[in-house]
Amino acid sequence: MTPEAPMQTPAHQLARDHRTISIAEFFEKNRHLLGFDSPTRGIITTVKEAVDNALDACEEVEILPDIFIGVHKLSDGLYKIIVEDNGPGILASHIPFVFGKILYGSRFHQIRQSRGQQGIGISAAVLYAQLTSGQPTQIISRCSYHEPAHEFLLGIDTEANEPNIVSHTEREWERAHGTRIEITLKATFSARKRLIEYLAYSSVVNPHTRITLDLDGEHMVFERTDHEPIKKAESIKPHPHGTELGRLQRMIAHKELPKHMTIHAFLVDQFSKIGIKTADEICIHAQIEKNTPISHLDLATLTALHAAMQQAKIPPPNAQACLSPITEDQIRQGILKEFNPDFASAKARTAIVYAGHPVVVEAALGYGGSLEAEGQAKLLRFANRVPLMYQQGACIITGAISAINWRNYGLSQQGLPLGPILLLVHVASTNVPFTSESKDAIAAVPEIEKEITLAVQELGRELKLFLSRRDKMRQSDERAQAICSFIPDIAQKVAETLERPVPDTSPIEGRILKRVVAKKQYRDGTVYLSVSNYTSTELDISIYCFSSDNLSLASPKPVYCDESDGEYTAVWNLHLACGEKWSAEFLGTGDGTIDLRGTSDEQKVVIDHVSS
Amino acid sequence: MTPEAPMQTPAHQLARDHRTISIAEFFEKNRHLLGFDSPTRGIITTVKEAVDNALDACEEVEILPDIFIGVHKLSDGLYKIIVEDNGPGILASHIPFVFGKILYGSRFHQIRQSRGQQGIGISAAVLYAQLTSGQPTQIISRCSYHEPAHEFLLGIDTEANEPNIVSHTEREWERAHGTRIEITLKATFSARKRLIEYLAYSSVVNPHTRITLDLDGEHMVFERTDHEPIKKAESIKPHPHGTELGRLQRMIAHKELPKHMTIHAFLVDQFSKIGIKTADEICIHAQIEKNTPISHLDLATLTALHAAMQQAKIPPPNAQACLSPITEDQIRQGILKEFNPDFASAKARTAIVYAGHPVVVEAALGYGGSLEAEGQAKLLRFANRVPLMYQQGACIITGAISAINWRNYGLSQQGLPLGPILLLVHVASTNVPFTSESKDAIAAVPEIEKEITLAVQELGRELKLFLSRRDKMRQSDERAQAICSFIPDIAQKVAETLERPVPDTSPIEGRILKRVVAKKQYRDGTVYLSVSNYTSTELDISIYCFSSDNLSLASPKPVYCDESDGEYTAVWNLHLACGEKWSAEFLGTGDGTIDLRGTSDEQKVVIDHVSS
Repeated sequence: MTPEAPMQTPAHQLARDHRTISIAEFFEKNRHLLGFDSPTRGIITTVKEAVDNALDACEEVEILPDIFIGVHKLSDGLYKIIVEDNGPGILASHIPFVFGKILYGSRFHQIRQSRGQQGIGISAAVLYAQLTSGQPTQIISRCSYHEPAHEFLLGIDTEANEPNIVSHTEREWERAHGTRIEITLKATFSARKRLIEYLAYSSVVNPHTRITLDLDGEHMVFERTDHEPIKKAESIKPHPHGTELGRLQRMIAHKELPKHMTIHAFLVDQFSKIGIKTADEICIHAQIEKNTPISHLDLATLTALHAAMQQAKIPPPNAQACLSPITEDQIRQGILKEFNPDFASAKARTAIVYAGHPVVVEAALGYGGSLEAEGQAKLLRFANRVPLMYQQGACIITGAISAINWRNYGLSQQGLPLGPILLLVHVASTNVPFTSESKDAIAAVPEIEKEITLAVQELGRELKLFLSRRDKMRQSDERAQAICSFIPDIAQKVAETLERPVPDTSPIEGRILKRVVAKKQYRDGTVYLSVSNYTSTELDISIYCFSSDNLSLASPKPVYCDESDGEYTAVWNLHLACGEKWSAEFLGTGDGTIDLRGTSDEQKVVIDHVSS
Repeated sequence: MTPEAPMQTPAHQLARDHRTISIAEFFEKNRHLLGFDSPTRGIITTVKEAVDNALDACEEVEILPDIFIGVHKLSDGLYKIIVEDNGPGILASHIPFVFGKILYGSRFHQIRQSRGQQGIGISAAVLYAQLTSGQPTQIISRCSYHEPAHEFLLGIDTEANEPNIVSHTEREWERAHGTRIEITLKATFSARKRLIEYLAYSSVVNPHTRITLDLDGEHMVFERTDHEPIKKAESIKPHPHGTELGRLQRMIAHKELPKHMTIHAFLVDQFSKIGIKTADEICIHAQIEKNTPISHLDLATLTALHAAMQQAKIPPPNAQACLSPITEDQIRQGILKEFNPDFASAKARTAIVYAGHPVVVEAALGYGGSLEAEGQAKLLRFANRVPLMYQQGACIITGAISAINWRNYGLSQQGLPLGPILLLVHVASTNVPFTSESKDAIAAVPEIEKEITLAVQELGRELKLFLSRRDKMRQSDERAQAICSFIPDIAQKVAETLERPVPDTSPIEGRILKRVVAKKQYRDGTVYLSVSNYTSTELDISIYCFSSDNLSLASPKPVYCDESDGEYTAVWNLHLACGEKWSAEFLGTGDGTIDLRGTSDEQKVVIDHVSS
């Protein structure tokens, strides 16, 4: 500050209070922006930030993540959170900054998909812990077997936004590499269900991850279902269509660029998707000689260059390289595993670009099964493979889905559609536009909204088809059942007329109903088993038989047979083509029961002529 | 950074990308958090930030604000915004930081109501201008007649978050004191209506302010209606109930406090509302000897002290001093002036405390008049005298109002109540919890939600009373009209029976209907005017007469009389007590018409026996 005139104006008085505000002070005061708005949320936000970091770090070096989470109550309102990973570890010299300085990180300046990006989350948790419990955070990290682990106790000097190192020691650690954070904060743990949901959903979109949870002694494992590490997303150069004039100015003035670099070379070298020919065109359009050194460009020329860049036809950025979508197949598997619906489908849109950032929207829809039949659809929102657990109402995913007319797909709606429906939407981008630093909700960017709408509408059409087929099936089923109810009477009449025994009509019924029919019959000391496949598909199924007869002597021999207290259990595994019939026999009375496994209840008919 | 072992682990590779991120870089990338999410919003956000600062500065020194706003289109998509105020000005040495450094300001560390608080807004506008137009911002400011004005051209060094001064000169300026900012940014100006609304609403809650708008040559003035400057809100000390353990730790370690200060003196001196007796109690409860020097307290003792502070009975902070609510009367006047409803009422709640911050909620409700009869209620949201123009759906004000059962008050609802309704809610606090830095919506803090609900419910009850009274009035009106429809017939029958001329029944009708009755009659070359006040209130009204008769000769003489093309216009101003009658007469034919002004259409009956 330069010295002022001695006059004391009101401005002089006001100036006395002017001060730089540190970002740590700012976020300490406005901690609700970071998801630390209540003691209830503190635990989940802390776990989420640590897990995000662990997954990102593992992905960087393509390790299958193995994450341990501990939540322990120390006293009333005081909790200890532990998150430990098998990632690459963090260099000792960097640990204080990663955990003790807000806005410090490696991914902010890179254009690629990652969970963390700003370098805010985990240091905000350290800040919150310090504010509420007064205690520093413990970090242990190790980078390889050949080096010791490092243990830090640290906090944040809020006024300076710099790490405050309480202690630093080298130590033994059983892990070859990884990071462990132990953080003590004031909290109320009423969000147990939400924490478990968060981990379950994380597991759905990160099927390569194993998460182990210790909730004050209660253990849970979210096992990995995929054993391939996620391919690391690569950093790309900025796309010309998303580059603002001011940023172009800065790029050109960057100290690492040679002053005599030509504008043509600059365009080709510094941007995604500008080749020699496109660079030529841009220079011609902007009326700039292409060999002009970049240091010679004034604001007017740059403005023309920028306009020409925006107007040039340039392909979208390479989304394959820099994004890591979950894929339709894995989303669908995840839904089936987690919710077991009658119908499940997933759609991945091709990449689009908003403000220069590639975006891929993936969506999935599940219907029926174990999904809640009453009330609004269950909505799972994800951004860059992270479940979004709060502020559903403020998210464009909710907005886009609520704006769809679900009556078109045979559903009623109150905002979201009503019924046993699961909707999952994943937005993957090099820059997901969140509504706040807490990354709870995605902002209303029209391009993204449109992609969500298109993906979900496509799923809606598939659901409509499924529902109408199911209704048709039900109808034809009902007709078939109506016919079948007459058959035994007809058979009886015919038999009486012809004075012959009443024939067994169940195979006919099975054929009409298109089912798998398992039958047990008894004749003269022998029990006959048969399974007929009247469905329109090949089947791999098993027939179970429980009886006091000695099933181990059956022909053909069961693949499994066990006896206990005189009761036999036998299993035959069958492969039956359409229309094929299998049979077996054994000596005995035919007591006990039989059952089919490996086919749905609706598809099977079990006829037990002995016990019935 | 200390030197690392030479081993190259994956962690070494990752560490190469670790970097400090400047807050300017962060907000440049995440500018939607600041309300710069679209070219449409750019202009409004810029104006809003500059106006907020101007109003705050004027309030600090209790000047009546006079603000000029210019919005000028420079070329397609390029706009220049000018905001100029008559505030105290800013010292030249501070200007670069106020406008060219994010998180620099005077109000962050003060506990009192103000519009700006973080030191983000106006420098974010400078950052956005630089990013989109590449141009620096011009600032002119002057602190008194005895000093020259200073003119700066400046931008922000984004990577360092420091001002980048392009030029600085002293200059002449016609203002004695004030500040002018001229900022060039890329924008589309489709939000004309919203800008005008924003200024109109600002004017409602800042009645002491005059705002002049120049929209590319189109001028508008929002005139002040109150000529008293707002009383400056005073800074208060932190309240013990809102002080977290970590903050207490920092306060005790503050370098400006004498190390030997006793804990007792510290409590009394550093907090709001702790007197000697309360400090005694806290020390006893925490089992700390009250003369212990503050430098002797360890974490365990501090934790006990903190717990005792939270449990002590301490009155809420002094909201009168640090808050500046609008007041019921001014809100009501503002609504009446702006919307002219049939019913208007305002409620101010008494101050409450959330997390140590005092909050006052004020609400108002208008019904009928010029308010739109169809659709949802019009909702005006304000925080610390600033209109909130975006993200209505994400705001707790909307949430609280939608959660009220409006059927209780005789209204239907779809979220908000339906009908010709205006709802206004103002939240004033030393720390309004916004959902993001753009300060568009208030976060869901239960204490604040409850206050909004209670204030609006009270207004709902008043509205219900008004509506039921109005319905009763209408009913009795209808009855009176039914009776009046018989009177002429009865008069006619009676006159026929008695063989007398039919009497004039209109005064009777006026009396039954409780109206003001104006009558013009003609008899033998003289015209008689009369006005009878049958209402239950005293009235100041005017009677207008238009005629070719020479009204200037009437007795009593009109207060105003004009002749043009042989047509006279005359006006008499009358004060009539309840039941009082006024009359006048003049020579002529009685052609033309008469009218009453100064009373509602429903209240007056004009009977013109000559022209009818």
